[in-house]
Amino acid sequence: MTDPTAIDQIVDRLPVDIITTDPDVVATYAADQSQFTERARPIAVAMPRTTDEVAACVRAAHEHGIVVVPRGAGSGLSGAANAPAGAIVLSLHRMTAIRELDTENRVVVVEPGVITAELREHVRKAGLYYPPDPGSVDFCTIGGNVATNAGGMCCVKYGVTGDFVLGLECVLADGRIMRTGRRTVKGVAGFDLTSLLIGSEGALAVITEITLRLLPEPAEPHTLVASFPTLDGAGQAVRAISGAGITPSLLEILDRTTVRAVDDMTRMGLGDDTAALLLIQHDGADAPDALVSIEKQCTAVGASEIVVSSDQTEADMLLEARRQALPALERLGDWLLDDVCVPCSRITDLIAAIERISEQTGLTIGVFGHAGDGNLHPTIIYDDTDASSRDLAFEAFNAITQEALDLGGTITGEHGVGRLKAGWLRSELDPVNLAVHQSVKHAFDPTATLNPGAELQARA
Amino acid sequence: MTDPTAIDQIVDRLPVDIITTDPDVVATYAADQSQFTERARPIAVAMPRTTDEVAACVRAAHEHGIVVVPRGAGSGLSGAANAPAGAIVLSLHRMTAIRELDTENRVVVVEPGVITAELREHVRKAGLYYPPDPGSVDFCTIGGNVATNAGGMCCVKYGVTGDFVLGLECVLADGRIMRTGRRTVKGVAGFDLTSLLIGSEGALAVITEITLRLLPEPAEPHTLVASFPTLDGAGQAVRAISGAGITPSLLEILDRTTVRAVDDMTRMGLGDDTAALLLIQHDGADAPDALVSIEKQCTAVGASEIVVSSDQTEADMLLEARRQALPALERLGDWLLDDVCVPCSRITDLIAAIERISEQTGLTIGVFGHAGDGNLHPTIIYDDTDASSRDLAFEAFNAITQEALDLGGTITGEHGVGRLKAGWLRSELDPVNLAVHQSVKHAFDPTATLNPGAELQARA
Repeated sequence: MTDPTAIDQIVDRLPVDIITTDPDVVATYAADQSQFTERARPIAVAMPRTTDEVAACVRAAHEHGIVVVPRGAGSGLSGAANAPAGAIVLSLHRMTAIRELDTENRVVVVEPGVITAELREHVRKAGLYYPPDPGSVDFCTIGGNVATNAGGMCCVKYGVTGDFVLGLECVLADGRIMRTGRRTVKGVAGFDLTSLLIGSEGALAVITEITLRLLPEPAEPHTLVASFPTLDGAGQAVRAISGAGITPSLLEILDRTTVRAVDDMTRMGLGDDTAALLLIQHDGADAPDALVSIEKQCTAVGASEIVVSSDQTEADMLLEARRQALPALERLGDWLLDDVCVPCSRITDLIAAIERISEQTGLTIGVFGHAGDGNLHPTIIYDDTDASSRDLAFEAFNAITQEALDLGGTITGEHGVGRLKAGWLRSELDPVNLAVHQSVKHAFDPTATLNPGAELQARA
Repeated sequence: MTDPTAIDQIVDRLPVDIITTDPDVVATYAADQSQFTERARPIAVAMPRTTDEVAACVRAAHEHGIVVVPRGAGSGLSGAANAPAGAIVLSLHRMTAIRELDTENRVVVVEPGVITAELREHVRKAGLYYPPDPGSVDFCTIGGNVATNAGGMCCVKYGVTGDFVLGLECVLADGRIMRTGRRTVKGVAGFDLTSLLIGSEGALAVITEITLRLLPEPAEPHTLVASFPTLDGAGQAVRAISGAGITPSLLEILDRTTVRAVDDMTRMGLGDDTAALLLIQHDGADAPDALVSIEKQCTAVGASEIVVSSDQTEADMLLEARRQALPALERLGDWLLDDVCVPCSRITDLIAAIERISEQTGLTIGVFGHAGDGNLHPTIIYDDTDASSRDLAFEAFNAITQEALDLGGTITGEHGVGRLKAGWLRSELDPVNLAVHQSVKHAFDPTATLNPGAELQARA
């Protein structure tokens, strides 16, 4: 049992303006944006401004046996930042400095609280490109992105957050400060602790500085939107594009349910007969040729309507259907946004299975996501005030997750395991791998100070 | 102390044809191709054919307290596969199956003993591309590549071995079999144990199966070779190409010493006045335009001669100077091939520093390598039969490694730490990071069965 006066002792020893136990403040930091995840009442929120202050907070909590849950913007959808009762939430939102931009070597060094969109804009002004663009890009933080290995629409060509991280500074569970990685493009000195920390959801260390590699800014993309009267046609088109060796910079899919929801909200006229919509961009030097080839392939597999544009304003309008997917589905009720990933050749199998699950449960489930990666976001619509509807939604969620595994996929493509899918880890990973997870956690954090429950425990 | 009869007991319990203690055979497996690394007499070589046989070998050794050193082709240059006295060398060379090629999802599943060039050729026949091309590509194995996170000339555009690994099967130090990762392009279920194993040099697990992602085969590259009368001019050209946002698929440099050695051997006529040679390829759709731009940039910073070709036979000839770099330097005496990496903007600073070190030690040191990554291979020529020459070579080696660190670089870009640079890890990593290394090693291998000495111990 934790000494009930421990938090007072911690508050006493820390600078007065970096920790609060004000219940109203603390309540706003209790959980992320996930649904169906356990949440409780943390006891305090720490808001350090420097690495040393992070270390002081973690060390104090560690010495008093209090759990620390690191948190970026709280935009996560898996409950990785939900704090257990009595825990201290450690928010990195005040560490917002862009410490260095080395344009010559295309490297940027940032603090974890920098908003991802602001980072992208900052480097863009120097003609550089930081690709990862999670859906929450306008309010999530780069620290949270690293801790969850966030993705986005860019991944089909550019990869995920982790593909851009060269090195980290972090605070370990006992307050020690560690640097990992390097500033060079290549390097193999020692175990790859950087990659181990990426996506570890705050369970191994608190990330306090990130060194990222950047790319030259690509050309403005050319855009194509294709409507398909059958789901199968859209799946064939995705496979044909891949089979032709074309690498789009964006390849998104909206299923029939999502298309209708968007149409109902926006009156965009996406078509009642549309079973699936593909949104495709290409930002390579050969974009015009690639788009011609993609258009032919879409036509050959039965696309009913195709719109192509090289104009950015028009392209923005064409992509609007994708941007409005979640807002449109949100209008239909309470929603559980899922995240699974299957081999690209199986996306239409997954969508078809989700249609069956929708019929079986009687719930509306819209599917949209990153067709080029096989990473889809089935969005289950339910009534949170109705217990039986909640049960059905959770049943559908579990059925979808199992379906992804059965199709050779993973329980989470980019949102993370958190508390939402901790139990599902046992279905994806073998018992030896789970045992090694426990050993690695223990090696970093023997007293389970940092975010216990995320990734490692089964859901109750 | 190990029971002296332990190896006999191990031999007795394993299939007769997978382990040998024949001293002549064992001697050929004692060390890799490194110089200046400790080597000893291992006691046996195990040559398992299946994952279960690997597990049986490791389990038997573990139970008898005998060290196991995993080994691919033994082509390493850092001594990571050098076996301590009394150890069992576990060679994966009989596990050569390409288990599956999924062309639709661009995934290949292979055993660790597959020769990298054969893997590349196998997938090329299906129109797919596995980029990593270490210098030893014709005889090294994919398992060794994963264990060292090998690079090559492709990295400037395509990245290193680890960038293509989706998942692994491996045998832990006590013989348990574990799978990590996935087959999908994206996935964040659990800690990234796959990346932790990549580059861990056999100290955490024995890799028995590798799932790799592949790319569509790129267009045939266009090639440019530029001679510079000053080292500084070549450095400016590299920076100008990068600054223009051009991403070549190959960007190699040869310094004056290497150019002369190649000229002496091949009579290629690379020019007595050449201070540095840049070899550049571009395989993008915009290769012709990119080459025009690169040519202009090279001219603007004073290139004395530029040859461009889109013909593959001619390109092969142009690249011959790079291929002959090491053979040409080898003719000059015994050689120590080093591997350091600095921020790209500092490569000419590093080469200039190496010229000073060459003058100070009186040793010939040729430098060639991957200018686009900042990853260079200084090659120190010495006389192995002369103790003072050996001492000078080791002094030069240490001075170069320190210079790389001083320039913001790393002690190893792609060859690994092994036994050659284990002591140098302390100069690159902070004490907390080193302590975490020990904890991670202990979490995987508490009895130090697997390759103790690589990566973790200081050189004597």
